[in-house]
Order: sequence, then structure tokens, then C-alpha cells
Amino acid sequence: MLRAEILSVGTELLMGQIANTNAQYISKRLPEVGVGVYYHSVVGDNPARLTDSLQLALSRADVVLTTGGLGPTQDDLTKETISNALHLEMKLHQDSADAIAHYFHRSGREMAESNLRQAYFPENSLIMDNDEGTAPGCIIRLQHDCGEKIIILLPGPPKELIPMFNRHVLPFFAKMQDAPLYSRFLRIIGVGESMVEQKLMCLVDGQTNPTLATYAKDGVVTIRVTAHEEGNIPAELLVSDTCSKICDILGNSVYASEDEDIEVTVHRLLKERGLTFACAESCTGGMLATRMTAIPGASDVFVCGLVTYQESSKVVLSGVRDETLQQFGAVSYETALEMVLGCKQISKADVAVSITGYAGPACGDEPVGRVYIGVSAPGVQTVREFSFSGNRDRIRNLSVIHALDLVRKAILHL
Amino acid sequence: MLRAEILSVGTELLMGQIANTNAQYISKRLPEVGVGVYYHSVVGDNPARLTDSLQLALSRADVVLTTGGLGPTQDDLTKETISNALHLEMKLHQDSADAIAHYFHRSGREMAESNLRQAYFPENSLIMDNDEGTAPGCIIRLQHDCGEKIIILLPGPPKELIPMFNRHVLPFFAKMQDAPLYSRFLRIIGVGESMVEQKLMCLVDGQTNPTLATYAKDGVVTIRVTAHEEGNIPAELLVSDTCSKICDILGNSVYASEDEDIEVTVHRLLKERGLTFACAESCTGGMLATRMTAIPGASDVFVCGLVTYQESSKVVLSGVRDETLQQFGAVSYETALEMVLGCKQISKADVAVSITGYAGPACGDEPVGRVYIGVSAPGVQTVREFSFSGNRDRIRNLSVIHALDLVRKAILHL
Repeated sequence: MLRAEILSVGTELLMGQIANTNAQYISKRLPEVGVGVYYHSVVGDNPARLTDSLQLALSRADVVLTTGGLGPTQDDLTKETISNALHLEMKLHQDSADAIAHYFHRSGREMAESNLRQAYFPENSLIMDNDEGTAPGCIIRLQHDCGEKIIILLPGPPKELIPMFNRHVLPFFAKMQDAPLYSRFLRIIGVGESMVEQKLMCLVDGQTNPTLATYAKDGVVTIRVTAHEEGNIPAELLVSDTCSKICDILGNSVYASEDEDIEVTVHRLLKERGLTFACAESCTGGMLATRMTAIPGASDVFVCGLVTYQESSKVVLSGVRDETLQQFGAVSYETALEMVLGCKQISKADVAVSITGYAGPACGDEPVGRVYIGVSAPGVQTVREFSFSGNRDRIRNLSVIHALDLVRKAILHL
Repeated sequence: MLRAEILSVGTELLMGQIANTNAQYISKRLPEVGVGVYYHSVVGDNPARLTDSLQLALSRADVVLTTGGLGPTQDDLTKETISNALHLEMKLHQDSADAIAHYFHRSGREMAESNLRQAYFPENSLIMDNDEGTAPGCIIRLQHDCGEKIIILLPGPPKELIPMFNRHVLPFFAKMQDAPLYSRFLRIIGVGESMVEQKLMCLVDGQTNPTLATYAKDGVVTIRVTAHEEGNIPAELLVSDTCSKICDILGNSVYASEDEDIEVTVHRLLKERGLTFACAESCTGGMLATRMTAIPGASDVFVCGLVTYQESSKVVLSGVRDETLQQFGAVSYETALEMVLGCKQISKADVAVSITGYAGPACGDEPVGRVYIGVSAPGVQTVREFSFSGNRDRIRNLSVIHALDLVRKAILHL
């Protein structure tokens, strides 16, 4: 397996003006063509530091992909710096020069002299044209002190980098492959990361193919299962075999067998069953509705959401009775139940969920983190009490995650 | 000026599952306390590569900030690896052990044995507690071959890292300054970053104290103004003088003179005026309500939100007339107007806002990005048409930002 380093060049990254989404994108895609990413590094638009970082990268990786610094301005110096460092001559690439001139002609803009710099490349490089901008990229193969190396120069703007990467870089490595890697993701709600690892210990210990990795974010644990072909057993088979074992161990806490968010799973399950959906939220204040409607085509299933924040609105919008609020309070089993039933009635949706709780910060003797979630679906009517910990944001997020997971479980077998 | 390197640890970064937003956040904030970021690097959960990367970072930076690898699981090995590399002993920090036990007790979850690993730290380190999770961070100061170094270990999840960084790391460096730096932030909606820079050119050119930096995110441009004391003029005075000049140039596009989100500004203005607020959202699906209710004490002003997604719900909940939908469509001036008036009526709020638009992706000949925003406030009743560009997420976000900014302008002079 080839080892890669992504070397991003740009002071805007070191100033925190942008996140390094290029490194993320490249990292996600390279393993598909048998290239493992071992390092990311970021340096500013500074020739000396770029040269040092390049030499380091060449000493520890087979493939170095640079992003950024191919533009026409003075601080774009990736190509020149790398040519110098590798003692390669810069040569004019006539097709690129023509393409750049054509690009300016087409867009009716005047071409600055400096734009022609973009048509010069280190000798013997393979040019990758840029359909979205003026900066072509290139692939350099060379014999270095530390072995044969591949250096790939990509532009900085993601809208130029991504098409160039997909059109040129992926196919370049795909052609070099003998044993491709394959990964799948399982996602889990309701079991913590440590507990997941503990339960899967038997699958992890001493195992090198497939490998398992877990990570937790916003109340969801993701397990990545990655394998390479071994003997005659294809990577996909090794992965799916291990995934089945994991699902047996973790049961229906596993909500998805791909890298998808819970709302996408719920949307898919609702749509497959021809069910419509509505929600009534108090402490989460519209977060669940926001997530459901973030999905393109949400209106196939999502009817409406009620954000009944002040008590009066719980009465007016979701038909909670005044007496219920007075007797049990806004954060109670009874209020959650009336909210979900009222929401279902006004929306005429097939499935509804309600959330009411104390998200904090603490005010008086409210039990911060106490949350009631009501679900009503064909054949199911339930309210569950939760005690979440953390700050306001975390409690709200966990409430949404668990509400969606309860909806999933309520409709799974319909 | 201290030179820093951010060393992020986590295979999930090298697999491209997440972008390195931690490095971005830290890079943005460190210059405020006189620390310049010169390198980012990312390595996986691998002790040998982490050790090498740490040694490299110590050879080229005064401050090394690591992110990630402080969790309880087997692949969380930043603390142990760094201790080994620096020949420091790991010692139990009793307060942290107690806090972790308390955290599990409070949330009613079982504590795995491995969680206690999180209470061990390299000897002589300064512990930074983690109010949002179980992994405390630490600051190590030591005399290294290449001089005095500061190593700061931060957790990976941004929700834990950001508060810890703000509460401990920024003040730590602020105290080390001789001429303390002072920063203020101005925030702007409705003027692009390039235009802001162009308009402020006269203040930027040749100026070194205060310095100005602008950055744009999610439709908001932030200007940071940073100064150090000069002669007898305090940094605060230099900063506030420049801020006044900026406000004169940019007028009421400046919505806040601190680093606060627009919903916080709107919440404050409503509260100061004793006004209540409600919203009716279509394409934004609850995002505006989510942001308003993310603020602790939201219920002082926020009555309720209606997420009227399918057309039927626009009629039932916000009282839009069937004829209006038929004649003008759900995305129209007329619908936005009836939505905001209906919302105001049902909620009895003093101020209401409505949003209806095409967030995409394109379906038929819908003009993706066309959004109508209605505002009703004492003495104000208005609908504005916008044409936003970008993907679904961006269009939804810009709609919310501009809706909140219209509310701000409607109540500013009340």
C-alpha cells in the first residue's frame, strides 16, 4: 500500500480563515484506490518552510499531494519552490498556455502577464487540466534519495481541486492497484464509545485484517471496518462478515450500516413505509425539525414542526391542557404525551414525536438534563424519560438524537 | 512573538471523516494573545509517528498544541506517548478522578475501568478541567534541547476543546504578554468580505497598531481589531478609536461590536425593549427557532416557532389562504406576508418573522436561492426578496442570518 502525505500550502489556513476541507476530501477518497494517508501538514506561503516540509514529506511518504499555491499571484509559489527543491527545470506547456488564454477570452476578462506563469511546469510532469479555473495541476514522478516518489500538485480552491482530483488523480492510482482497500461504517446510538469497544474486544484483539476503529461525536458512535483483499477473499467479504458479527453483538443499537446521520435513516424508513412525520419540540427549539428538513426532498415525509417554547404555545399549538401544565409541569411525562398526541392531530401526520426537558443552564432546582420524549406511530404510543449530562447544547443535541432513534425503533418493524 | 504548531492526533482526520476545524479555531484565536501559528500537522493514533511529529514540532516551534487522543479508549494515546517521549512520569490527579466518577454518577451511566486513565497526567503539568466531557487537558512547560517549550494537550471533540481553549489557553498566553494585547470584534451582515476590505483600505494601509484582520463565515464577516499599548496610549483606546472609524464607514451593517452571533444581538435588543418574538419558517425548517432557543433564557422573548413545511401546514398553522398558495405559490411575497401575519396572530408575539424560499437542490424550474422574508414589528411590516447562491445548507443559513438581521433593523430604533 502506498503511503501518502497531504501538504497544504496557504497562509489562510494558518490564520484560521478556512478549514482544511481539501485534506479531508482527499483523505476520504485515496483509500479507495489503495493509497493510505499517513500525514497532513500545512505551511504558509513561505518558500523555505515549504521546501523543508516537502523534503520531510518525501522522506516519510511515497506520494506527496500538495494543495494550493498554483494561482497567478506573487504569493503562489508552490510550483516554483518544488521545482527548485527537486532541481527540475520549469518548461512552458503550450496547451495550458492556450487554454488559459482561451479561458480569459471566454470570460471576457483581460489576461494579466502573470497568468502565463500558470502554464509553466516542472520538466517531465504530467499536466492535469483545470476545467473550473486557470491553474492546471501536475503529477511528477521521480527517483529520489529515498526511492521512487510521486508528487501531485493540486490547486487550492475546492471547486477546482475536487473535479481535478476525481478526473485525474483517482484514475492515476486506480491503474496502479493490485489489492484495493474497502471500508464500511456502522453507526450506533445509545451505547457509549468505551462500552462499544469493550463489547467488541473479542473482534479487535490481535486482528489486523479487517481493522476496526471507533469514534464518537455528538452522541453517535461510528465504527469503521476496513479490509484489504487477502488470499482469494475479497475485501468486501471480509468487511461484511465482520459487520455482521458487530451487528449481532450490538443488536438494534446499530442504526445504520453506512456513514449516515440518524435523520437520514429515519427519513428513509418513513419514505419506504409511506409514512408522514411531524414533531413538537420544546427544549430542542426546532433542532429536530432543522435536521429533518436539511435532507433534500424532506417534504416527502415531513409535514410540519411546532416549536412550543413558552407554556401558552404548548396549549394553543399542540393542545396540551392547562390543567396538565399546572398539575405536572411543562417537563413531564404527561405533557410530553399530550404534546405528541396534539401534534399528530393538528398535523395529521402518521408518526409524531415530542420533546420537553430542561436543557439548562440550571435555574432554581430544575433537574438539568431531564428530558421526556413522546412517540406516536401506528401501533406505538410511548413516552420515555432521559437524564442527559453536559451543557445546554449537548443536552439539546442528545435529546434530538434519542428522539430520532426512538422514532426509528417505533417504525422499524412496520 | 511565540511560534506555535498545532499537532492533531486522530485517524479519523486521516480517513477524512472529519475536517480539522480544531486547527482552524485555534489558529484564528492564538494571534489575539501574541502567538503565531506556523504549522499544522496531523498524525494517526500511532505512537511512533506521534513521537516523531512531536520531536519535529518541538524543533521548530515554541508552543505545541495537540488536539485529540485524550479519550478513554485504547487508541487514545496522546498523553502516554508524549509522556514517554519527554521522559515524564504519569501521575494520578485526584480531582480529575473524582470529577470523572462524578460525571458518570450524575449521568447514571456505568464507568468503564479505562475511564480512570483520563485522570493520569505527565508530572508537573497544569490540569485544565473539561466541563463538557470526561477528558481533562493539560499544559506542560519544560526545558528541551531546543529551548523552553510549552506543550498543551487538548481534547478532540470541538465541543470540549473550544470551551477549554477559551477558559484556560487564551488566558495562559494573555498573562505572558509584556505589552498586553487587546482585541475587539465587529460583525457585519450584508456586505461581502472583499467589499469590507476595500472600504476599510484607508485604515489598513501601512498600519501596524492596531492591526485589522477580516474573515468571513456563514454569511457573516468578522473584523478583528488588535492593538498593544503604545507610549502611554492604552491598547483599549487604540482599538476603540479604530472601531469607531470602522462603524462610521460601514454604518448599520455592523450588527455587533463584539464576537457575538446575530441571534444573541436580536435576543438582547428584544429583551431590552420588552418585546416577544415568534417565527414561521418554511425552507429553513426550524433553523431560526433553533438559533433563538440556543440562547440560555430564550423563553424571556421567544414564544414559539412554526415550521410550516408542507403546504397544508401553512394553511392550518400560519393561516395562509388556499387562494394565496394557488395564485402566487408557496414561495412568494404574498405567502411570506400572510405567514408572518398569521404567526403574529396565533403567537400573540410583538415581533414576528417569516421565511419561505427555494433552498434547492433544483427541482424543475424553481429559482433555487429565491427567498422571501417577512417581518412584522410595531410600526413595521415588510417583505423582502433575496437571491442567495450556494448549496441547500448555505441558502438555508443565509436566509436565517438575513431574517435575523431584518428583525434587528426593524426593532433597532423602537
